Amino acid sequence: MTESDLKFRVNMIAVGDELLEGRTADTNSGRIQRALGQHAVQVVGIQVVPDTKEAIHTALQRTAAGDIVFMTGGLGSTPDDLTRDMVASWAAVELIQDDEVRRQLEQRWAKLGRKAGVGVHRQCQVPQGMTALTNPVGSAPGLVGRLKDRILVMLPGVPDEMIGLLPLVMQWLGEQGYLPAARQILLWRTGQIAELALVRKLDDIRSAHPRLHWSWWLTEWGVDVRLAAEPGHIEAQAQLAAVNDPVTAALGHLVYSRRMETLPEVVQKMMIERGLTLSVAESCTAGMIGAKLTDLAGSSAFFKGGILAYSNDIKQELLGVPAEILEEHGAVCGPVVQAMAEGAKQRLGTDFALAVSGISGPDGGHVDKPVGTTWMAVAGPEKTFTQVYRFPGDRHRNRMLTVASVVDSLRRSLEFGSDQSPWRSGDSWCTPASGRTK
Amino acid sequence: MTESDLKFRVNMIAVGDELLEGRTADTNSGRIQRALGQHAVQVVGIQVVPDTKEAIHTALQRTAAGDIVFMTGGLGSTPDDLTRDMVASWAAVELIQDDEVRRQLEQRWAKLGRKAGVGVHRQCQVPQGMTALTNPVGSAPGLVGRLKDRILVMLPGVPDEMIGLLPLVMQWLGEQGYLPAARQILLWRTGQIAELALVRKLDDIRSAHPRLHWSWWLTEWGVDVRLAAEPGHIEAQAQLAAVNDPVTAALGHLVYSRRMETLPEVVQKMMIERGLTLSVAESCTAGMIGAKLTDLAGSSAFFKGGILAYSNDIKQELLGVPAEILEEHGAVCGPVVQAMAEGAKQRLGTDFALAVSGISGPDGGHVDKPVGTTWMAVAGPEKTFTQVYRFPGDRHRNRMLTVASVVDSLRRSLEFGSDQSPWRSGDSWCTPASGRTK
Repeated sequence: MTESDLKFRVNMIAVGDELLEGRTADTNSGRIQRALGQHAVQVVGIQVVPDTKEAIHTALQRTAAGDIVFMTGGLGSTPDDLTRDMVASWAAVELIQDDEVRRQLEQRWAKLGRKAGVGVHRQCQVPQGMTALTNPVGSAPGLVGRLKDRILVMLPGVPDEMIGLLPLVMQWLGEQGYLPAARQILLWRTGQIAELALVRKLDDIRSAHPRLHWSWWLTEWGVDVRLAAEPGHIEAQAQLAAVNDPVTAALGHLVYSRRMETLPEVVQKMMIERGLTLSVAESCTAGMIGAKLTDLAGSSAFFKGGILAYSNDIKQELLGVPAEILEEHGAVCGPVVQAMAEGAKQRLGTDFALAVSGISGPDGGHVDKPVGTTWMAVAGPEKTFTQVYRFPGDRHRNRMLTVASVVDSLRRSLEFGSDQSPWRSGDSWCTPASGRTK
Repeated sequence: MTESDLKFRVNMIAVGDELLEGRTADTNSGRIQRALGQHAVQVVGIQVVPDTKEAIHTALQRTAAGDIVFMTGGLGSTPDDLTRDMVASWAAVELIQDDEVRRQLEQRWAKLGRKAGVGVHRQCQVPQGMTALTNPVGSAPGLVGRLKDRILVMLPGVPDEMIGLLPLVMQWLGEQGYLPAARQILLWRTGQIAELALVRKLDDIRSAHPRLHWSWWLTEWGVDVRLAAEPGHIEAQAQLAAVNDPVTAALGHLVYSRRMETLPEVVQKMMIERGLTLSVAESCTAGMIGAKLTDLAGSSAFFKGGILAYSNDIKQELLGVPAEILEEHGAVCGPVVQAMAEGAKQRLGTDFALAVSGISGPDGGHVDKPVGTTWMAVAGPEKTFTQVYRFPGDRHRNRMLTVASVVDSLRRSLEFGSDQSPWRSGDSWCTPASGRTK
């Protein structure tokens, strides 16, 4: 096989009964995809197959000459670990004992104060033409090489062992010249807009640039727009360069990042850089906002805490929401979230505070306040802004959208300035801008 | 196709570029596998394919007559949602507009106070011979029917929407006689124990009953033990009946349910039945406990609220944790969680309160308090009990295990009596029982 035969196509095969019984999810394929990152390889598919000779053989048959084939699982030391044997028989090569691997495995067991078991005999067998990569984590070595015009990479199924070997595999692929140059990819991560509304914003630009590969998908925090040009396509490369500014302009304040970082990452960085602190007052989300804002290590540098005011008594007692307002307007209204945010900000002594109060469903909706009606407030150093949303989902979805929206509203406050409303009319889910200032 | 042609073979196809770019994992296939769990079907493989006509066609070609084919993804309203079209062209049938679906979609948009957009036109198209199932959650309907001798089930890729439709799909498959009789299954849902430790407890019983199919599944709340006998096997049926009591005895207080209900469901029922109220004081989890305890509608009947005391100032000011204790022992110790729980219980006026304070990582560990060290307290009407755990995971996993453990400890308090320690020596993750009472 010559370099020119390389298609830079990646085919993945995950082997293991447990992956087909709802017990374990195949996380390895995703990790390998991320490791391949921006290299202009095309992952053409993942096959998840059981531990049977037929299934593994069929999966290998479905790969094409020139593919880089990643196989995970079935490299253990027990008789039902068949990947090694099936690769050898599929490629019609011998399984050869690798003395160096055996030496290392025996050393490893000796370190653990044990004698190498019978399994070692299987684990040091390597299909002829493949090379073993010592596993820094577990016992099963990784196997790499060229067989039947494929670049084969065989990795253990245990995630820790797979992760331990992955850097060595990437290095090997690079050294062998099996990985292409990094592909140019443009990414816009947006919040507070529905997928279809976002796509509509880009209709004209898309139809004007047919040579680009557009994709969108929902994330926990909103919708991502991803734009790629295949390497080599001069025209597509030019289109990609030309389209960056128009798309950025069309999306405007909806974009919270151009990189692979989550909204909480973005907010945490901004808050810490500016030395700002945050507290929360949560009703319908009952802790989800605080939980998400502390997913990342280091969050204690800006997140101080909050009040979960699920009941009205606690809104009054711990946040100082006036009883009259609760009686007059109920718990889901602008004045209540404003009082909640300002109460949290003052009592927890933070620069910013977020508050939410909504009807997540399935019960509690009425004509004027249907399920999904959610008020939120962002209290900053000078002003407090409030906004009402009507989320379209069920209880779980509405709570998720509430968290994503209020955290993104904080992001906007930090970008626009805390004396500006974080909302613009026409924002998805928002009713005609009802931002009010104190 | 006659019933006898049915193989009860399940073939899964997950469609979506995002599943091949390392950004999103295919969690849908696992959910479908678990939903099928009770039925003696064989999942023969999962294919994850990109949003291209060729890939979707090839994936369909690889299924066999008689298969039940689950397809997820590509049912949205955007131009790269191709599943509908490809199924129609693969089966050589027309796409027909379903007026009922259109009516429902338009109603749905009207409810949100908006006009249905162009996307609706695509979403109400149904391949001839298939039936649309209204989506209780999102807009994309599910499509079910028989095409080319396959039982086709097409579901949206957005997990919430897929999960919302799954019960309707299972009902349809059952009514149509496409699913084999449910296997008799015994289920034990356990908390606060590691998978391997659980498996060991059952070694003897397992080896004594070779005709049974045992499986263990990690869940968000612990480990499930599932035991099945193939239908028709008289001997296995008898073994299943005989093994129920011994397994139940071996697992003892670790079992929080014998049915498919979550731990928060169990706790919510017990609390509401007894008219008890709960508050939380969260440090390292920063809201995760409150969030999980309010996932279910009706939770406001027992959950009142809580304090997120991420910083020590707030532990002192809002929960009344004595400064001396914090200075002397630090924030991660028994006296602090005891004071947090009692502070929350008193200030929020609830019957019970839960408190946690731990070192989730990656930073903050030291020799005597390594990462994963987590103290928790359960304050009941008479007494407060505290316990220290050493969780083995990373930041995310340690926080999840903290939530699962403290909620399960509340469940045990309600079962054992709130004047009893919720912990028994030998509980997994717990250091030798260090329960202390006020």
